[in-house]
Amino acid sequence: MVSVNQSDLLVEITKSVVEELKKHHLLDGQTRKEFVPVSVSARHIHLQQEHVRLLFGDGYSLTPMKDISQPGQYAAQEKVTIKGPKGAIENVRILGPLRKQSQVELSRTDARKLGLQLPVRNSGNLKGSSPVTLIGPRGSVTLDEGGIIADRHIHMTPSDAMQYGVTDGQKVSVAVEGEKSGVMGQVTIRVKDRYALDMHIDTDDANAFGLAGGELLKIIP
Amino acid sequence: MVSVNQSDLLVEITKSVVEELKKHHLLDGQTRKEFVPVSVSARHIHLQQEHVRLLFGDGYSLTPMKDISQPGQYAAQEKVTIKGPKGAIENVRILGPLRKQSQVELSRTDARKLGLQLPVRNSGNLKGSSPVTLIGPRGSVTLDEGGIIADRHIHMTPSDAMQYGVTDGQKVSVAVEGEKSGVMGQVTIRVKDRYALDMHIDTDDANAFGLAGGELLKIIP
Repeated sequence: MVSVNQSDLLVEITKSVVEELKKHHLLDGQTRKEFVPVSVSARHIHLQQEHVRLLFGDGYSLTPMKDISQPGQYAAQEKVTIKGPKGAIENVRILGPLRKQSQVELSRTDARKLGLQLPVRNSGNLKGSSPVTLIGPRGSVTLDEGGIIADRHIHMTPSDAMQYGVTDGQKVSVAVEGEKSGVMGQVTIRVKDRYALDMHIDTDDANAFGLAGGELLKIIP
Repeated sequence: MVSVNQSDLLVEITKSVVEELKKHHLLDGQTRKEFVPVSVSARHIHLQQEHVRLLFGDGYSLTPMKDISQPGQYAAQEKVTIKGPKGAIENVRILGPLRKQSQVELSRTDARKLGLQLPVRNSGNLKGSSPVTLIGPRGSVTLDEGGIIADRHIHMTPSDAMQYGVTDGQKVSVAVEGEKSGVMGQVTIRVKDRYALDMHIDTDDANAFGLAGGELLKIIP
């Protein structure tokens, strides 16, 4: 008898089921889902508790303003300034709830303006990512790491994953139609019980492919 | 006996030759060239004579600063401010020589900042494109049309076109490797005698695909 996380267990079971179905070509037909809705993530910041204190003062708590696409997450009323060697960007939104480690998600356009070299990373994978300075109303903090360009990714539940014939961590491509058509590669599938089905791209990808958010895009396995 | 433009004639001959070669599958082998160098075009402006006068004063001439990739074209020393309903962008470079109609090439990121709705267009195809206001040191001018997002395109000579197996006006796709990999669609082939072989993309495409300029990208016919 071992204790396992229910979510991890579901992910593992889904993987096994999908692999079995693939062996028997049961995911090859018309029944496989292909299209996912896309959302555009503007630059934003996730904060750890200590950094809320340094930026906004002792005992301060973030003020939720509105829910965002992933359940439990919210845009906070609070905004701060991001500073780099070449410039600054004001009024950058903070998203809640708090995280274990602060994370600053920017586009490459932002990075150039700030003079930062940002790696493309999965959310939470911050080891060796870029230092970045945040300036709030009550103080500032320089993160040793935490500045990233978020990778293109698609959130979905284990049930979605089975219907799309994909597994957690898989890299897929996604096709875009229109006058700035093309294919986005290296799109990471992220599977969790609590996820809402949604592809997330940053503003550079949105602007390059002429996407405003809300479009349905086709997954190419 | 008819009088024809030599460049147009070369383009037509090249098209015919390429079609014949294709029929005989002579362009199918390893001999077809595939890779083109890419350059990143920052926002810039081409001016007509009258607008130089309005922005910089009577009798003013642009001052060439340095040559750019296409022969005969240059970056001028002069810069102006672009203004839109939602904001302004300062220090936008003017490129010479003068054109018959002023043209303002911006990224969608720029367009959002300015509050402009820009169509994706070939250079010179300005009918019904966006109004835009320019502010120079001696005056300002509002263009009725001329604001565009330049389409992705590849400049080449008729000889290049034959070696790549493409024709003037053809739309191709171009593959990009790397952590922001993918495919750019709707890339226009532009063939002229005087063109230097070079793919041009804007800063949104460059930032979305992680390109700095100077990379070799593969054409997918």
